[in-house]
Amino acid sequence: MLHKLAVYHKSESIYSFPISENEVVIRLRMAKEDKDLDVKIVYNDNRYKFYETRYEKNMQVKYIDDLFSYFEVKLKLEDKRLGYIFKINDGKNTYYYHENGITKDYDYNYAYYNFFQIPYINKEDIVKEVKFMKNSVFYQIFVERFNRANYEKDDSYIDKKWGELPTPTSFSGGDLKGITKKLGYLKDLGINAIYLTPIFKANSNHKYDTLDYFEIDPHFGTKKDLKELVDTAHSLGIKIVLDAVFNHISSSHKFFLDVIENGKNSKYYDWFLIKDDYVDLDKMNYEVFADVAYMPKLNIKNEEVKKYLIEISKHYLKEYDIDGWRLDVADELSHTFWQEFNRELKAIKKDFVIIGEDWHDSQAFLRGNEWDSIMNYGLTKIFLDYFAMGKISIKDVANRLNSLIVRNIDQINTMNLNLLDSHDTPRLMTLVKKEKNTFLSSLAMLFTYIGTPCIYYGTEIGLEGNGDPDCRRTFEWDFNKIDINLHNTVKKLIEIRKLDVFKNTNISIYEEDKKLYIKRYDDKNELTLIIAKDLNYDESDIILSSKDYDNKKGINFVIKYQ
Amino acid sequence: MLHKLAVYHKSESIYSFPISENEVVIRLRMAKEDKDLDVKIVYNDNRYKFYETRYEKNMQVKYIDDLFSYFEVKLKLEDKRLGYIFKINDGKNTYYYHENGITKDYDYNYAYYNFFQIPYINKEDIVKEVKFMKNSVFYQIFVERFNRANYEKDDSYIDKKWGELPTPTSFSGGDLKGITKKLGYLKDLGINAIYLTPIFKANSNHKYDTLDYFEIDPHFGTKKDLKELVDTAHSLGIKIVLDAVFNHISSSHKFFLDVIENGKNSKYYDWFLIKDDYVDLDKMNYEVFADVAYMPKLNIKNEEVKKYLIEISKHYLKEYDIDGWRLDVADELSHTFWQEFNRELKAIKKDFVIIGEDWHDSQAFLRGNEWDSIMNYGLTKIFLDYFAMGKISIKDVANRLNSLIVRNIDQINTMNLNLLDSHDTPRLMTLVKKEKNTFLSSLAMLFTYIGTPCIYYGTEIGLEGNGDPDCRRTFEWDFNKIDINLHNTVKKLIEIRKLDVFKNTNISIYEEDKKLYIKRYDDKNELTLIIAKDLNYDESDIILSSKDYDNKKGINFVIKYQ
Repeated sequence: MLHKLAVYHKSESIYSFPISENEVVIRLRMAKEDKDLDVKIVYNDNRYKFYETRYEKNMQVKYIDDLFSYFEVKLKLEDKRLGYIFKINDGKNTYYYHENGITKDYDYNYAYYNFFQIPYINKEDIVKEVKFMKNSVFYQIFVERFNRANYEKDDSYIDKKWGELPTPTSFSGGDLKGITKKLGYLKDLGINAIYLTPIFKANSNHKYDTLDYFEIDPHFGTKKDLKELVDTAHSLGIKIVLDAVFNHISSSHKFFLDVIENGKNSKYYDWFLIKDDYVDLDKMNYEVFADVAYMPKLNIKNEEVKKYLIEISKHYLKEYDIDGWRLDVADELSHTFWQEFNRELKAIKKDFVIIGEDWHDSQAFLRGNEWDSIMNYGLTKIFLDYFAMGKISIKDVANRLNSLIVRNIDQINTMNLNLLDSHDTPRLMTLVKKEKNTFLSSLAMLFTYIGTPCIYYGTEIGLEGNGDPDCRRTFEWDFNKIDINLHNTVKKLIEIRKLDVFKNTNISIYEEDKKLYIKRYDDKNELTLIIAKDLNYDESDIILSSKDYDNKKGINFVIKYQ
Repeated sequence: MLHKLAVYHKSESIYSFPISENEVVIRLRMAKEDKDLDVKIVYNDNRYKFYETRYEKNMQVKYIDDLFSYFEVKLKLEDKRLGYIFKINDGKNTYYYHENGITKDYDYNYAYYNFFQIPYINKEDIVKEVKFMKNSVFYQIFVERFNRANYEKDDSYIDKKWGELPTPTSFSGGDLKGITKKLGYLKDLGINAIYLTPIFKANSNHKYDTLDYFEIDPHFGTKKDLKELVDTAHSLGIKIVLDAVFNHISSSHKFFLDVIENGKNSKYYDWFLIKDDYVDLDKMNYEVFADVAYMPKLNIKNEEVKKYLIEISKHYLKEYDIDGWRLDVADELSHTFWQEFNRELKAIKKDFVIIGEDWHDSQAFLRGNEWDSIMNYGLTKIFLDYFAMGKISIKDVANRLNSLIVRNIDQINTMNLNLLDSHDTPRLMTLVKKEKNTFLSSLAMLFTYIGTPCIYYGTEIGLEGNGDPDCRRTFEWDFNKIDINLHNTVKKLIEIRKLDVFKNTNISIYEEDKKLYIKRYDDKNELTLIIAKDLNYDESDIILSSKDYDNKKGINFVIKYQ
């Protein structure tokens, strides 16, 4: 018997989207128990003719989670005006599912009132993939701690020796030249995209409290250093994504200082969200980021603020040819702003990625005209719940990895930035309590899942660290001091991620006999990751397994390739 | 036991939307059977503090349909950064519902990963109501057939006497002056907004095949006539909405003629969607509206086309001060276009309505930055299924009226243009087979439902007519020939619709004892429409009942007011 409560579809949503001018993906949610039912889409690609002529196509289950099975079909269309309904047979009855719900019969003469539809596939509305995201492995660098190469700068600000543990306010001396110097290393590691935490003038070591968006922080270097970094990276085939903080700025930024001095008479008064005529720092009578007094929130509905932020964004695109922006606390800025931002920036450079920081279901920002991608903390949470904390079963992992996919359309899933840790969380190695096989199994999941994997600097050498500031330790460049086996295994994972089989959105994730399977496939190849506790495997087509690494404790994994 | 399959919520969607800077509406879908469960929202309006402090509020069932009950709560917020989850108690167990699904326990320390959220209420993203839509009763006029007042024009094109039945191509002589002359009549009828079918130069009687957007069709009058119509209407408090056909134009439009002549060398070649280098009218090697060869589709991704259409739209807004556009086949144009259209037009006049023709769930266009409203054919279909065809039960009517509401957010529901018939369907009187009580009951539903009611010219005199062209008969101005009782009852319904109780979105729709109840209410008043077959009612607080009309056949209705 059909579980009617579970049946769900919505036109022009994550359940119904074009991937090209003549191809659409249609998803239908059903109960998990109904995964074996006969489900068909009944359609005409000229909706005006649906009443007289229709085609049928079987739908297949593509994702299964805790409660639901998600059927999917890809339709090739001649015309671009799709009308459709669903026909479900549960062995006993045939049901029709359309905009007015589920019925046992359907009058096609009146179908124009209630079929589902994609009224017309307009090319400009199709969500576009940023090409380089398809094959990228990202590397996040916390600039202050990655590497120092500039020994000519005034380094009196540095209060920790390289290798000493950081405090919330300490400085270790990392800079842009330091990154440029290590591009060869990153290239060799297999990295082809870097995302840098903020580099603009700011007081703190993390630079999220911007003082001047148009100046490179002198601790980090000069404009020339940034130019050199981007150019060298590009020459090596590495993309550079910068971090922009547009939600708030530093309370010491000249605009806010002007408001502190002149109150309502300041020309920047309306750039902020101040409750009274004058700023009262003690009362904090102005809106801020979280509850941080020194980070006043910008008033994004002010057209001047919008213009200013877009000018900054365009500046780095035009002057330095950067390849994307990662946008801090992006979910607090308006959709109106992001739409303008997207229009203006994509007009300059198509192969340019916009990554919003939003830890949640961000579908409202991911319709193709705001961001391309998010920091996919949804995946981080699955990692935490299973690999780090052991709070859920491997079956739950499979369910939730599937759930996470159906939050978004294929194009967005390809571009989402998948991460297990960042400058805002404890480090992977620490989270898995130094169990190196669990560490590698987690990474293997990251690297085989749909989306763009991003590792936090130092992951490849097993750098440890608890929450901020401990997760921001300096990189260990003395490779005599690191676990080189671990390093090589991470490198191998990165290499695997470049295989052709990852160039499409085909994925199948399931649990069987307490093993997690993540299968990627195309017409020619098939790659399967198997993860389990105490995994024992010995086959010739394995390209990477826990056996390649000597420490057998924890969760094991195997990657098979055919 | 909780029916987990039914539980549904999504942040920043029709389930979660701000109505002001410090008020949000949160909806939660549950199974109909679970309508009596204890459902709470657990929230903090500063999402960053959700892990440490939370508030709880009960949710109430507001809508019930065939399968689901929709719980709702309105939250007043101090801060604008809402984090929330749901807590459901089924008598036995407590369940938590969040972005990772339904669980039996919940760790608030990790809530930042998976609570639902409205990250920040940005004023400019709040969907705005067009003020006049809140209290408007619309009247749709098919210009060629409403009234003729210009007897100086060249009328050699008129081939039917007023009162003669129309053919697809016949002309009866209606014009703009004819409408202006009857504005007093419409004012007296209670109408305060008129939507005119197209008035621009075109060959046909319906003028949907535009020849020149900048010229008023000479059959209908002059620019002066339009100016006079709008000005007179405004002086009477009546808004004027024009009909724009931007999906396609006439194949005799000078731009298309230029393409016919010059093929790929025409500067307008890219304004259309032509498969070959030259137009082949017989092969119809170009995209058209539906399958109508003489209506070639415009290429909306062409920036010049976009500019041109927006220029037209602005022209009538600036020169004539019109109050809205009704947009033909609007669902086939791109979201990109409509967003630009909305930005440009709303910048000129705020109290201006954008009504898209889309017969389906149009949520993708109704997010506040494209259209404000649709021709709500979803309601038409409910009317058809019950009142016209008797295919569903009165219980089904209640279910589907509720379903239709939860397709959209409150602001949109207020603005949707509700209609029972139009120039594209048979007429109401004919659809109900001249059963006058069914006719009035249907109208009573239209007038008490949430949204802006729109009657098709002649409805108030019971004009008959089958599908196009019969639904486009001339108006009968000899009131000795009409049913004046019916006319007065329609007038009374319009009057009722102006009551204060309709100025909010409170509505309760349910079936009891085979009677349909539609209740509207505010703090002070309550108005209930009751519809049933063979209704027998006799109470003092009835302001309109079937008894006010003499013909007792069919479905009866009562409107109670307290």
